[in-house]
Formats: sequence, C-alpha cells, structure tokens
Amino acid sequence: MFEKFYSERIKNTPSSFIREILKVTQNSDIISFAGGLPNPISFPQEALKVSMNRIADKYGAKIYQYSTTCGLDSLREHIVNRYKNLWNMDITIDNVIITTGSQQALDLIGKVFINEGDNVMVEKPSYLGLLQVFCLYRANFVTTKLNDDGLDINDLKNTLKTYKPKAAYLIPNFQNPTGLTYTKENREKVFDALKDEDMLLIQDDPYGELRFEDNIRIPYIGLNQTEKNLYLGSFSKIVTPGMRLGYIIANKEIIKMLETAKQASDLHSNIFGQYLISDYLSNNDLDTHIEKIKQLYKEQAGAMVSAMEEYFPQNIKFTKPKGGMFTWVTLEEGKDVLQLFDKAIAKKVAFVPGHPFYINPKTVNTLRLNYTNADSTTIKTGIKRLAEALNEV
Amino acid sequence: MFEKFYSERIKNTPSSFIREILKVTQNSDIISFAGGLPNPISFPQEALKVSMNRIADKYGAKIYQYSTTCGLDSLREHIVNRYKNLWNMDITIDNVIITTGSQQALDLIGKVFINEGDNVMVEKPSYLGLLQVFCLYRANFVTTKLNDDGLDINDLKNTLKTYKPKAAYLIPNFQNPTGLTYTKENREKVFDALKDEDMLLIQDDPYGELRFEDNIRIPYIGLNQTEKNLYLGSFSKIVTPGMRLGYIIANKEIIKMLETAKQASDLHSNIFGQYLISDYLSNNDLDTHIEKIKQLYKEQAGAMVSAMEEYFPQNIKFTKPKGGMFTWVTLEEGKDVLQLFDKAIAKKVAFVPGHPFYINPKTVNTLRLNYTNADSTTIKTGIKRLAEALNEV
Repeated sequence: MFEKFYSERIKNTPSSFIREILKVTQNSDIISFAGGLPNPISFPQEALKVSMNRIADKYGAKIYQYSTTCGLDSLREHIVNRYKNLWNMDITIDNVIITTGSQQALDLIGKVFINEGDNVMVEKPSYLGLLQVFCLYRANFVTTKLNDDGLDINDLKNTLKTYKPKAAYLIPNFQNPTGLTYTKENREKVFDALKDEDMLLIQDDPYGELRFEDNIRIPYIGLNQTEKNLYLGSFSKIVTPGMRLGYIIANKEIIKMLETAKQASDLHSNIFGQYLISDYLSNNDLDTHIEKIKQLYKEQAGAMVSAMEEYFPQNIKFTKPKGGMFTWVTLEEGKDVLQLFDKAIAKKVAFVPGHPFYINPKTVNTLRLNYTNADSTTIKTGIKRLAEALNEV
Repeated sequence: MFEKFYSERIKNTPSSFIREILKVTQNSDIISFAGGLPNPISFPQEALKVSMNRIADKYGAKIYQYSTTCGLDSLREHIVNRYKNLWNMDITIDNVIITTGSQQALDLIGKVFINEGDNVMVEKPSYLGLLQVFCLYRANFVTTKLNDDGLDINDLKNTLKTYKPKAAYLIPNFQNPTGLTYTKENREKVFDALKDEDMLLIQDDPYGELRFEDNIRIPYIGLNQTEKNLYLGSFSKIVTPGMRLGYIIANKEIIKMLETAKQASDLHSNIFGQYLISDYLSNNDLDTHIEKIKQLYKEQAGAMVSAMEEYFPQNIKFTKPKGGMFTWVTLEEGKDVLQLFDKAIAKKVAFVPGHPFYINPKTVNTLRLNYTNADSTTIKTGIKRLAEALNEV
C-alpha cells in the first residue's frame, strides 16, 4: 500500500532472517542454538542495583536530563584508561564516542563514510548487522575469505588490488558468526597488506574480553600504527546489552564527524545507563566479573565441541572457539543447509542457517550455533538431535 | 586529514549551531534562554526510584537482556490506551514502535522514506533536528509559512501544487522554535488541502501534553481520516529525556518497515528504561504529574511574556505561547539577529538566533527563547538585559 513511498535503500535491505527463525523457536520444546544472547550470568544484577540507587542519590536530576552527544565524560574516562592499560593507546576522551550499542556505531560509521557504491571489504562470512546497515547506505560489498588462522592473505591482496576498497570491516576476535580468531602472525600480514592502501580499518570487538582458552590477548591489527583505525567496543557482552551502550575509539577529527551524525540520529545515548555503568566500573572489579563469564562460556563451548566430536558425522567440519559465543558448522560442499534446517526443526533443535552472513547467498552449506544459553546437558541433547538430522541430508 | 573519506551526506550536514552557542553560555554569569531543557521538576524522581527497584526485583535479568526491536509490549500497550482514550484511535501495539527518543523517530522515517532529492515540506521555520537528519538523507526541503493561527493556507496550496512533496513534517502544538499552535480551523483547512495529495503527513508532538492555557486539546490534522498519518510522541518532556524514549504511531505496514530500519540502527532501545517508564505509568497518575509541570511552565511563560511586554521596544514582535517551552521573537525587517547576539552576550544574556531553523538562511531577524529553566525573577532580569541589547541594534 505504501510501496511507492519507500526509499530505494530500505527496499533493498533484507529484514532479519534471524528474527523469523526466532519466531519458529519460541514457545515450544525446541532446543535453540539460534539466538545470540549472552547468558544472564553476565549481568552483575546485584551490583547494578546498588549502583542505580547510588547514582539516584548522588546525581539526582542529572541521570534523567538531556546530556552531551559524545557521552558521559566519566564513562569515556573508564574506556580511555582500560585501552591505555591494555593496549598502551595514546588517547583521551576526545578519541571516544559512546554509541547506542555497537549497532549504532556501525550506523554512524555508515552515515559518515559510505556513499552509494563505495567498496567496503568484509570477511566472508561477516556479521549480519553490519551487512544490513551498510546495505542501507548502499555500500558495494567485496569479500575476503576467512581461514582458520584469519584472513586469506592472497585473497586479501587480490581484493585490495581489484577493488581498492574505501574501508575494511573486520572482527578479529571470536568472530560472529564463525567463532574464528585471527592469529598474531595473520594480523601482522593483514596490516602489511593494508598499510599502504588509502583506506579505513574498522575493527569490531564485542567478544574480545571473552577469551577462555590460553590467556594471551592478541593486539589489534595495526594497533597504534595508523590514524585510519576505528576500534569498536561494547558493554553488551560483559555487563549488559539491555542498556545499549557501545563505543568507538578513533582519531579526534573522525569522532567530531561521528558526533554530528549521532546528534542527528538520537541526540545522545541513554544517560541513566551511562551513569549506571560508570558507577559500576568505579565500584567493582570488571576483570573479576569477566572471569566468571569466561568460566561458564568455556564449559559450554567445551560441551558443544565434545558433543559435536562425539555425534557428528565425520564429513562435518566445525570451529573450536577459543572465546566468544559461537561455533560454525560446515556441511559437505553442495549440501543445502535449509534442508537440514527443516529436518532439525522436526527433531526439535534450531540454529541459524549461514545465509544472512553472506552477500547474495545461493546454496549455503554453513550454519551458526550459539552455546551461551543452554547448560551442558541440554547442549549435548541438542547436538545429538542435530547429528540425527545431519545423517538424513 | 580524512576529508576524502567522508560521505557526501555528512559533508553537507551542518553540525549544531546550538551546541556552539551553549559553549559560549557555560561557566559564566550569563542568563541563558538558549537551551531547550525541560525543568527538572518534570522528572518524577522519587517515583522513578521506587519503580527501578521494583522492576529489578520483579523482572530480574530481563531488564538487562537484549529485547525486541519494536519495544516492550507493556509500554506500547500504555501508549495505545492513552491514544485510544484521548483520540479514539483504532490501533493496537502493532501500530506502535518505540524509538530512541523522537530524534531517532525522525532518523528512521528518513531511512525508510527519503530518497536523495525527494521534496519534503516543512514549516518556515522548522525544528532544527529534523532539518539536520533529513539533510543527511539528502531531502530537498520546501517550506510553507507559519502564521499565528497555523500554516498559511495559500502558501500551502502553492507549495503543494508547485513541488508535489512526498511528505510534510509539521509540529501543530507549541511548535519548536516558534511556540505557535495551529487552531482547530486551521488544521481542518490544512487537511482539506492535503487530503487529495498522495503524500505522507508526519506530525511531531513532543509538547502537546504541555498545554497550560485553555484546557482544550485540539485534534491532530486528519486524525483517524487517513492511513498516511505518522504520529510522533515522546516521554522526554513529561517523564524524562535522559532515557531517550519516544514512539511512532502509524499504519502496521509502515511500522514493519520502520522496524527493519531500527534493527539496523540500534537493534532496540534501552530496555531498562522501557520497563522503568512502563512501571511508572502503571503505578502513578501521569496526568497529575503533568499538571505540576504545566503549572510551573505557565508561570514561567507568563513571567517572560510580561517582561517582554514591559521592557521590549514597541517594534519587537513575539509569540505568547499557550503551552510548550519556547517563545519566538521577531525584530524589524532587515535587522540582523547576529548583531543582537553579540550585544546580548556582552550584557550577559543568551538566546538562539533563528538561523538553524531555516533552510539556507541569509540575514535572519528572529530568535528563540526558552523559559523552562529559570525562575520568574531571573527571567525578568534576563529579558531586561535583552531589551537593553535590542535598544542598541
């Protein structure tokens, strides 16, 4: 009825595949690995309740009033200190803008940088939320293959040479959807290939804090070596996603442009949530809290990997994640995961077919599994059901 | 340094004029009528503190988890009931989407409807936040003059005939910046002129609840008479702006498209805030609270109007608002308000020059005054200073 009024950009943007799937899996006895929700254990509920009462008493009307577009200074200060300590970054709060979740960070970057037809390089597969929002800004996606150790360097060089992308969007830690992590060596090779190109490098890192195997943090690609790096982070997976608070760290001039875009987008992010998380960070040890989440996710990931090793047919490949929330399963070449999906639902287990993570997918033989929202026993039962479905396609 | 990377849309979007002005007025003995903040009395702080503890106890992890894009059902239910009661609207929660403040409502509408070059009709002058965000979507603005009783009907007809706009954006109640309200008769004439045009009508109404003169609510333009109406509302001026919660009421098909755009923009709005306001509305009488705000604003508006009548030179015109937060001052034709601004700052009083409310302004002879954030004595002193400045230009 309103077709003629819609913009070209929205007509070309797919609505969420996952949302439709989640509808199938609700209100039933289906074991769902389709979601992407953090485990509620990751919300420090008692400490947050203490903090909300404290900020109400301490700041009064300020926690309810309009506020500044770039975000609460004290929260930006916390971020600056953490990145200084972890990564020796030479930054101040002028290098930080608070966003309404990482998804808004992607929207603002699209607004500020993407003209219709601009080439943007993404991993194959990539995060569907990025594909969706850059699609709105009519980006032309070009892809580089993802291997077990990170980007395929030959494919990367070809893509750079052929398409001269304006920007690359990468998730080097525990990628969504694949659960893969770039090795240190791979990151160095990626930066070598990128460093003479005139392009922006956007590194999205919602899962970086959730490394549960070997306790070594691998530095960002080109860390502290270029002004063209945009680092994205989020409180969603380590404190609470419901407050919708993420951030971008970048050159000050870029932050100023993002600020103009953000002002037009929502004026500023929820200020109550910013006071709340800032107070929480001042009065609690974040790393102690993160340790608890990591222990749980490690156990859950382990249960899923063990079950897949035990039950899956030999010809099925899957990643063994060292952190984050997902694993990625690859069927034999030529198999159609949508056939598997129907059989799996019949056996009462759900997953996300790989489609929304690709550009113009045709037959897709991959799928994403989330392990953070079921206990080990349920995970085992669900994987067993999935294995039965796999044996039928 | 990053100039070549920026999108055309952001290069053409002005950063906020008001933000620059607010910097001048901070940390000093300047009386500022430049802001647009609600008075802190409008935040029901004690009741909100009760509500936040109640929702923490009642809902646990849910108030911190990811949630649905369209918003919390119970909050949408409150909105549905209010609009049914007030306006006899035939709607369900499927006609409502919660947005991260009204500013995001405008961003989503831009995303869903505006192609580069689309004609959009706005009042002259119009809300700067709309001009900013539709500028990002490269709309072509066409304007209709605003008179004391609403839109200039002849000008409206000419604009419609000449430009065939895709959409009109109007603020019929206590407009920002002018404080003007369309009369019932004017609204009927506007709808008469619009109803056979194939266009959307966006009515933004952040101030409609704050009517402090004569207690009659005037219906929206074309209320319940067309599916092409989009009604925008907000909790910012009646409960809290810091939570960033607004909403759009529209045809279900339109809401579905807005949902796709919102998912790409920030997944969903802060869910804690949605639980909080929903609980507040369930346990308090909103109208009793609004009455308190109205009494205060009526007194403040009265103080400003009286002082302007007493001190301003005869040739200065100004609106006498019947609600909302602003009044609008017009100097003699040809005068430059920027000259006045410098003199006013020297006399330690600030306002917003009319510029950001116009498309491509040249010499501007208008200015906006806010009265909600100063007591009557301060208002009188400030207006006296402004009158002195007026006498010098």
